[in-house]
Amino acid sequence: MKTRAAVAFGAGKPLEVVDVDLQGPKAGEVMIELKATGICHTDAFTLSGDDPEGEFPAILGHEGAGIVVEVGAGVTSVKPGDTVIPLYTPECRGCEYCLNPKTNLCQAIRTTQGQGLMPDGTSRFSLDGQPLKHYMGCSTFANHTVLPEIAVAKIRDDAPFDKVCYIGCGVTTGVGAVIFDAKVEPGSNVVVFGLGGIGLNVIQGARIAGANQIIGVDINPSKVELARKFGMTGFINPKEVPDVVEAIVEMTKGGADYSFECIGNVNTMRQALECCHKGWGESIIIGVAGAGQEISTRPFQLVTGRVWRGSAFGGARGRTDVPKIVDWYMDGKINIDDLITHTMPLDDINKGFDLMHAGESIRSVVLY
Amino acid sequence: MKTRAAVAFGAGKPLEVVDVDLQGPKAGEVMIELKATGICHTDAFTLSGDDPEGEFPAILGHEGAGIVVEVGAGVTSVKPGDTVIPLYTPECRGCEYCLNPKTNLCQAIRTTQGQGLMPDGTSRFSLDGQPLKHYMGCSTFANHTVLPEIAVAKIRDDAPFDKVCYIGCGVTTGVGAVIFDAKVEPGSNVVVFGLGGIGLNVIQGARIAGANQIIGVDINPSKVELARKFGMTGFINPKEVPDVVEAIVEMTKGGADYSFECIGNVNTMRQALECCHKGWGESIIIGVAGAGQEISTRPFQLVTGRVWRGSAFGGARGRTDVPKIVDWYMDGKINIDDLITHTMPLDDINKGFDLMHAGESIRSVVLY
Repeated sequence: MKTRAAVAFGAGKPLEVVDVDLQGPKAGEVMIELKATGICHTDAFTLSGDDPEGEFPAILGHEGAGIVVEVGAGVTSVKPGDTVIPLYTPECRGCEYCLNPKTNLCQAIRTTQGQGLMPDGTSRFSLDGQPLKHYMGCSTFANHTVLPEIAVAKIRDDAPFDKVCYIGCGVTTGVGAVIFDAKVEPGSNVVVFGLGGIGLNVIQGARIAGANQIIGVDINPSKVELARKFGMTGFINPKEVPDVVEAIVEMTKGGADYSFECIGNVNTMRQALECCHKGWGESIIIGVAGAGQEISTRPFQLVTGRVWRGSAFGGARGRTDVPKIVDWYMDGKINIDDLITHTMPLDDINKGFDLMHAGESIRSVVLY
Repeated sequence: MKTRAAVAFGAGKPLEVVDVDLQGPKAGEVMIELKATGICHTDAFTLSGDDPEGEFPAILGHEGAGIVVEVGAGVTSVKPGDTVIPLYTPECRGCEYCLNPKTNLCQAIRTTQGQGLMPDGTSRFSLDGQPLKHYMGCSTFANHTVLPEIAVAKIRDDAPFDKVCYIGCGVTTGVGAVIFDAKVEPGSNVVVFGLGGIGLNVIQGARIAGANQIIGVDINPSKVELARKFGMTGFINPKEVPDVVEAIVEMTKGGADYSFECIGNVNTMRQALECCHKGWGESIIIGVAGAGQEISTRPFQLVTGRVWRGSAFGGARGRTDVPKIVDWYMDGKINIDDLITHTMPLDDINKGFDLMHAGESIRSVVLY
């Protein structure tokens, strides 16, 4: 069949919206009609050419919501008509990783997904007979896409596509890092580096978890108002204090119980670790650093009790946890509406990238 | 009163065994007659002058066992005649740290201890009217010493001083790091960098915890035989493989569930992290790096699920856990006898340092 898609033909080039060919789902696969997709920094990172795994031509996008239109042989967990969210971190429930409660990094289809292919090593997308690569196992910048069943989370039917698509990446990454990975306890002091979309979601995760202080750190004071609405209780502008680590230790009376790095800067990653409380403070890296960059600290920081860890997709197991987060949104426990700052049709998708690069959006969503 | 002590008069100088003056215990303090003390690399580190906190003249030593001979006003937890082990990490059971189950780093007397003084800001030791500094709150290189009550662990009376003194530092640091900090589960794969005294104690801790593979990493193959006796199941000599991280990942079929760095080298600290299993491997730094040295890695290592932490005094709460470890020794669950390679009288203490520097001892113990 034909479907409308935004194709990335090469690094640094704008997307081109064209009709592409899409094969139907093979055994164990699901075809989805997308209704909405967010535009994430990770899409821009790959489009820029800086992503060492990036391949072209490809259909980018990994933060979608839609409806199942067709299932391949053997698919049992979803059926046509189901409302679903694609998962770039699948959940096969059978691999060594899925069976270990310490991780959410299902490896069942890792190799082919990294190659931009379906698990059988081929692509379902093509243009003029030439295959187009899938992206992060999702390719949501298309009106229809095909995914493995293990990469499809069934959610409730009354959830609005234009909001819950953001749960496919940013919301889960931020809220989940607090709840599933750090497991922040009520009464904890939490410090959040970077008040973009991920940082705001970390803040509301910390609020849900019952954190005491929730301190935001950002060089842009215009982000304060919305961050306070999401639950931030204190703010530090690194440009206004002599030493951000000392300022945090002072404001928290000893250091952060948990800190989250939501920028992707190796210098703030170090600050995020070193502002943690001696004895027990844990720092969680969420941001993605540039290729080849390294973090450093004195080992004394760890020997005296600080813990350095990271989080990917918020530690969430997609098929299990994404439906729960949708419920939290529908129950009013988390705010997504204020984060969707722009919507646009697929034809205008490059404007969404422009808004993001200009720092004028939190999340732009394409509506199909 | 007078007591016989080995005094460190300055950095890099041999200790001098002389009679020094010792004041009796003040309120909340305990005088101990030491029966044995180990000689630890940390004593040598301070004596070398490399320890930025090192002060002279001082009475070093922190790994002792002895008998209470006198208690100051208000002391209730020990009485004269009790067998005890001095604690360089005290356990006040009342400070913010003692009340947090995530740490053992009691801070009740941290400041004065770091200054080589008793909690009232003075020293109990003097020579010719000039005060001598305490060391790590213990000063076990003296036939008698005075400690705060919170730094004294009461143990069973039938424990042999010449063996259980080692529980005052090395045994607890190694065994405890596995059991109290990493909390290694049965069936885990454990990798130990450095097969000195700490590494051997990590190995027997891992054996007690029910580890599956216990792989030692050391450039000195002469350490293999004893390590196997302690529970090591596999050995890698970094000089004999092209890449030690790859060799570990291969031998463990994916990486270490837990790795322990027992050397104090920032390069092996990085290897110890990077040999951990994606998704859940945790690396615990025990070794003490040189002043100012830094550890580095790519943040991707953490974002993909590895955890970097440290351990001090094995995560043990001294008054609570040290008596338990003494029981484990008396019950034959851990082996200390094979680690005490040399004993000597106090007059020969410098020979103990020489043996350590020459790599000819695991632990030398001074017998009073």
